[in-house]
Amino acid sequence: MNAPSFIDFWFDFSSPYSYIANEWVDALAARHGRVVRRHAILLGATFAAADLKSPVSYPIKREYSILDFGRSARFEGLPYRFPDPFPIPTQNAARLFWWLHDTVSEQEAARWTRTAMRAYFTRGMALNDSEVLKDLAGEMGLDASKAESIWNDPQWKNRLRQACDTAIATGVFGAPFFIVDGEPFWGNDRKVQLERWLQQGPF
Amino acid sequence: MNAPSFIDFWFDFSSPYSYIANEWVDALAARHGRVVRRHAILLGATFAAADLKSPVSYPIKREYSILDFGRSARFEGLPYRFPDPFPIPTQNAARLFWWLHDTVSEQEAARWTRTAMRAYFTRGMALNDSEVLKDLAGEMGLDASKAESIWNDPQWKNRLRQACDTAIATGVFGAPFFIVDGEPFWGNDRKVQLERWLQQGPF
Repeated sequence: MNAPSFIDFWFDFSSPYSYIANEWVDALAARHGRVVRRHAILLGATFAAADLKSPVSYPIKREYSILDFGRSARFEGLPYRFPDPFPIPTQNAARLFWWLHDTVSEQEAARWTRTAMRAYFTRGMALNDSEVLKDLAGEMGLDASKAESIWNDPQWKNRLRQACDTAIATGVFGAPFFIVDGEPFWGNDRKVQLERWLQQGPF
Repeated sequence: MNAPSFIDFWFDFSSPYSYIANEWVDALAARHGRVVRRHAILLGATFAAADLKSPVSYPIKREYSILDFGRSARFEGLPYRFPDPFPIPTQNAARLFWWLHDTVSEQEAARWTRTAMRAYFTRGMALNDSEVLKDLAGEMGLDASKAESIWNDPQWKNRLRQACDTAIATGVFGAPFFIVDGEPFWGNDRKVQLERWLQQGPF
């Protein structure tokens, strides 16, 4: 038997569509014998590289986007509350992700992703607030002051910067972004195409 | 029995995702006892009003978009060829649409929409070329020189301008754009949500 191949999944902790995709991607992968590889990035970095801006930065698109975030979550049967503040800088959550990813396990990094995104998008816990992040690290069973030292450590700042640079070099310009068998899929709304690809191969 | 209610559908003749949606929207409406009301607009006008640009105007997004146009067409089982030139100005095709819509019937306007978009997206016939448009009008059974006089007539230029202004006032900022029971859905990829709305009502 061959080793299972991957679904590469890029996300930002502050992206509502990434939160939704994060909730379905593991089941999707399991249905097709794939393994998810998560990559925490900062949308600010990929937007800047591609000369793009967040949809909510355009007043007319903002109103629709806020409606669509909630509707898209409900479509997947997920709890969701539009968070305030939104969007937020998520570098500390992402540095903690990479520390778990590189020094503990991808599974623990995935567990942190779920914990932090659910906290932000269903409980309104602002991930840019250090005290909130330390509480969440505690909920995960991590040492809160250890967590804080991680996100202030140049090594993990650099690791996140590398992840963003790699994403940009790979052609990632938004989130959620998936690559399967070299094929890019951008957006929570590409789930149906991704599923067909996994079922039937290239189309 | 109540009169059937509508699916309002805004499109630009040069939009690949509009071409795809135009091919499925009538069957979707029929499955749920709805009637499609088509509105030809110019994306240039709605982009300008919302301070947006075409995805293909961003180099990094362009490459992905071109791949996704074709993949999204194949996903729906539709013939598709990325046209050259792309995008093109489509005001003449749209003025002819409004003339058919207002003076003949919505059905004839819909038939023109199919004819012109299929010509551009499957046969590479550039709808910005007057000779091409006249040939297509002829294929439709219209008098080609009559068609040309329509798109040069200030009355139909003004009718298209009105349609764009109304779209902008309604919150339309891209294409395809749908409104059902007051609920906006933007993009060919909102088909699954639109279908659930029509089946089950608001979610």
